[in-house]
Amino acid sequence: DTDVTIYPGLLSLTSQGELVRTLKTEKAVKADIDAAVKLLLKLKADYKQVTGQDYKAGCPPLESTVLEDTGPAAAVDGEDMVDPWNVSTTSAKGVDYDKLIVRFGSSKVDQELVDRIERVSGKKPHRFLRRGIFFSHRDMHQVLDAYEKNKSFYLYTGRGPSSEAMHVGHLIPFIFTKWLQDTFDIPLVIQLTDDEKYLWKDLSLEDCHRYAVENAKDIIACGFDVNKTFIFSDLDYMGASPDFYRNVVKIQKHVTFNQVKGIFGFGDSDCIGKIAFPAIQAAPSFSNSFPQIFKGRKDIQCLIPCAIDQDPYFRMTRDVAPRIGYPKPALLHSTFFPALQGAQTKMSASDANSSIFLTDTPKQIKNKVNKHAFSGGKDTIEEHRKYGGNPDVDVSFMYLTFFLEDDEQLDKIRQDYASGALLTGELKKRLIDTLQPMITAHQERRKQVTEEMVLKFMTPRPLDFNF
Amino acid sequence: DTDVTIYPGLLSLTSQGELVRTLKTEKAVKADIDAAVKLLLKLKADYKQVTGQDYKAGCPPLESTVLEDTGPAAAVDGEDMVDPWNVSTTSAKGVDYDKLIVRFGSSKVDQELVDRIERVSGKKPHRFLRRGIFFSHRDMHQVLDAYEKNKSFYLYTGRGPSSEAMHVGHLIPFIFTKWLQDTFDIPLVIQLTDDEKYLWKDLSLEDCHRYAVENAKDIIACGFDVNKTFIFSDLDYMGASPDFYRNVVKIQKHVTFNQVKGIFGFGDSDCIGKIAFPAIQAAPSFSNSFPQIFKGRKDIQCLIPCAIDQDPYFRMTRDVAPRIGYPKPALLHSTFFPALQGAQTKMSASDANSSIFLTDTPKQIKNKVNKHAFSGGKDTIEEHRKYGGNPDVDVSFMYLTFFLEDDEQLDKIRQDYASGALLTGELKKRLIDTLQPMITAHQERRKQVTEEMVLKFMTPRPLDFNF
Repeated sequence: DTDVTIYPGLLSLTSQGELVRTLKTEKAVKADIDAAVKLLLKLKADYKQVTGQDYKAGCPPLESTVLEDTGPAAAVDGEDMVDPWNVSTTSAKGVDYDKLIVRFGSSKVDQELVDRIERVSGKKPHRFLRRGIFFSHRDMHQVLDAYEKNKSFYLYTGRGPSSEAMHVGHLIPFIFTKWLQDTFDIPLVIQLTDDEKYLWKDLSLEDCHRYAVENAKDIIACGFDVNKTFIFSDLDYMGASPDFYRNVVKIQKHVTFNQVKGIFGFGDSDCIGKIAFPAIQAAPSFSNSFPQIFKGRKDIQCLIPCAIDQDPYFRMTRDVAPRIGYPKPALLHSTFFPALQGAQTKMSASDANSSIFLTDTPKQIKNKVNKHAFSGGKDTIEEHRKYGGNPDVDVSFMYLTFFLEDDEQLDKIRQDYASGALLTGELKKRLIDTLQPMITAHQERRKQVTEEMVLKFMTPRPLDFNF
Repeated sequence: DTDVTIYPGLLSLTSQGELVRTLKTEKAVKADIDAAVKLLLKLKADYKQVTGQDYKAGCPPLESTVLEDTGPAAAVDGEDMVDPWNVSTTSAKGVDYDKLIVRFGSSKVDQELVDRIERVSGKKPHRFLRRGIFFSHRDMHQVLDAYEKNKSFYLYTGRGPSSEAMHVGHLIPFIFTKWLQDTFDIPLVIQLTDDEKYLWKDLSLEDCHRYAVENAKDIIACGFDVNKTFIFSDLDYMGASPDFYRNVVKIQKHVTFNQVKGIFGFGDSDCIGKIAFPAIQAAPSFSNSFPQIFKGRKDIQCLIPCAIDQDPYFRMTRDVAPRIGYPKPALLHSTFFPALQGAQTKMSASDANSSIFLTDTPKQIKNKVNKHAFSGGKDTIEEHRKYGGNPDVDVSFMYLTFFLEDDEQLDKIRQDYASGALLTGELKKRLIDTLQPMITAHQERRKQVTEEMVLKFMTPRPLDFNF
């Protein structure tokens, strides 16, 4: 990885774009606005001449060499757009992940890596690995090299608690993280960024913190071992750990506004809390942020399983790490979980019909899938039988790739749907039959989660590991 | 006080100025640079036409109505320059404080206020009040109105621990704060901004924290009552108080980068820690940052005695306060303590000859005053006897206004020096005789400060007050 490089010309354009907006806001003299707009157009033309591409605010040009570990989060490719707050594409198949790997400068989780994980762990790889759902990584081979030499690592993942309601998509990183924890027998820290949600959303601090605790219950219901797992709310842990704050300040000293502007697209009218926040998401990547677990050691490597949209935080973290004497965290990136309406958008916790919620009843699940799950089938049964359906754009099939464990069954469903042997209604039934018991079981486990258990998970304390 | 208003035209100019610098840094096409410079000049001309004044980067126009509670910290008036990191003037008398009051939109500590403090407290006003050393305030009458109705308040002051060495000038806010605490019998919190020093200076976190603890010993030696005073290092207290961090986040949500850019002159290449830091200096202004002292109450008003260069932090704080439901802190501002070499500069802790340090021996004090204290005397004894000296630029006389308690003696010294009856050597002797026992007594008291006492002062705990 290289130091942060800003693409030449980009700052001038950003700066001039801001000027034009400011002049307009200030209702400046028309001649000044015109002159500024003219200059903006000229800079855009120069940019195009140099890069061969149109300028879009907040977006770098496409050359991946310029971008490795450095580029803005916003990645425009055709119509794909990916950053920690927005994901969109116009393709019904979803984001083009191979192109995202090139753009973000990460590495593909290829068959060789999946085989190696199987060899090293002695366990069958999780279906998320077998099916390319965790499709991208940084430094996984380094983590495995060290593990083979008996050098341990730890897991860090998280969630932004923007409401009480979690949907099945939110479980993806936790399901996979639990598998990693069980497989490698290592400590896990889970950050609930209630401070972030307060800064970004129109919510009170109290609500954000309450959502963090409610979300913790759903996370605990995934089956984590309380003796190996620490779950924390930023609002609590920042005020409970001088070592965590020390790391936050260290990171904040080594990242400039220019950098977070380039990486996250922050602007001058953003609040200073947003601007400083990336350091808070970065800090758990360093083991001495948790002295109660790692006895002050700063050399335990961190592996972060997360959705690819969180990568910008950790590109920044990896850039800072060597400058403050810490190992870079390794990453495993997942694809996005599609909305019921189709893979063009990320799901929204605020739209009840955009996904299956962890609180849905079996009946609600059935209705939602039947009514809202975007279908890759043909308009009539006759056409479907004749031409077959398209599993690549069918949301029910996509959900089955996430949740149906049996590879053979899944493959047969794909083939039958593509051939027309399986109708859309039948495919939806398979999904409903998979989701209903899964969600019911989750709800049962969540009911068992007591306030005492939550308190224990969220109390800073040693875990069952010796460092 | 009004909400933050940015002077129309100022943002465009700032933005355009940045653009020109960026284009040059990026070695852009010459025609683009020329076009940008041309537009910048045009905007400057428009600005002059509207305001009648030349534009200077980071500086608002002079109308105080525009500036009240809003203007940048940097205040250029003739050659005076005042912000939290730089103070300079070309006048040997020092900064023009009356103009600073107009510029900062604060109020003068006039005879009426001094008399009222005497009436309300029943105590002779401190020499710093009698002599205009605490010369400016915000909302002191409101504090006294409430106090007369038995509504209490608390004191907040602080120090940036950039080295172990403190000089006599650093004692000014503490000497005065002790008098206020004794006079009004109220709680006091003292913030040591070790995180700030780490962010601004080339120092390690460990050194900054060590300096904080060392400085705490000198502060304790001023005679504060451990049952009424809480001293805290940011690096410790942020990680020990979720309530403090909650207030920091609240403030950070309500201040934009544009605002801190305007107030503190931060730029795009500043680290995100600096950009977010003002919220950390603001947070102790709100009583619920100290639940152990104020039992969670958020309505106890805060009075901040500090040097005038810290005012920008608290103008920002006062702007934010009503928006997050807290009372605005009141302020009492002091003038700067002059360097031995003259009132043109603020003292530097890194130049041993620029002031009297709290560790200086009686001999060092004598030598420093005799050798380095800028004199307002004439070149020869004959001329001095004939024309008299100038006490207004004489540093020994200035120091005596800070430290000689007796008003009559001080007045006689002034008259005798101005008439020529008192020679420079004799004036210096008066200062030496005042400083030597004062510093020796301080050193004696500091020796009595044990690690245990420091620990007690710095432990979050209830104080001897009922809220």
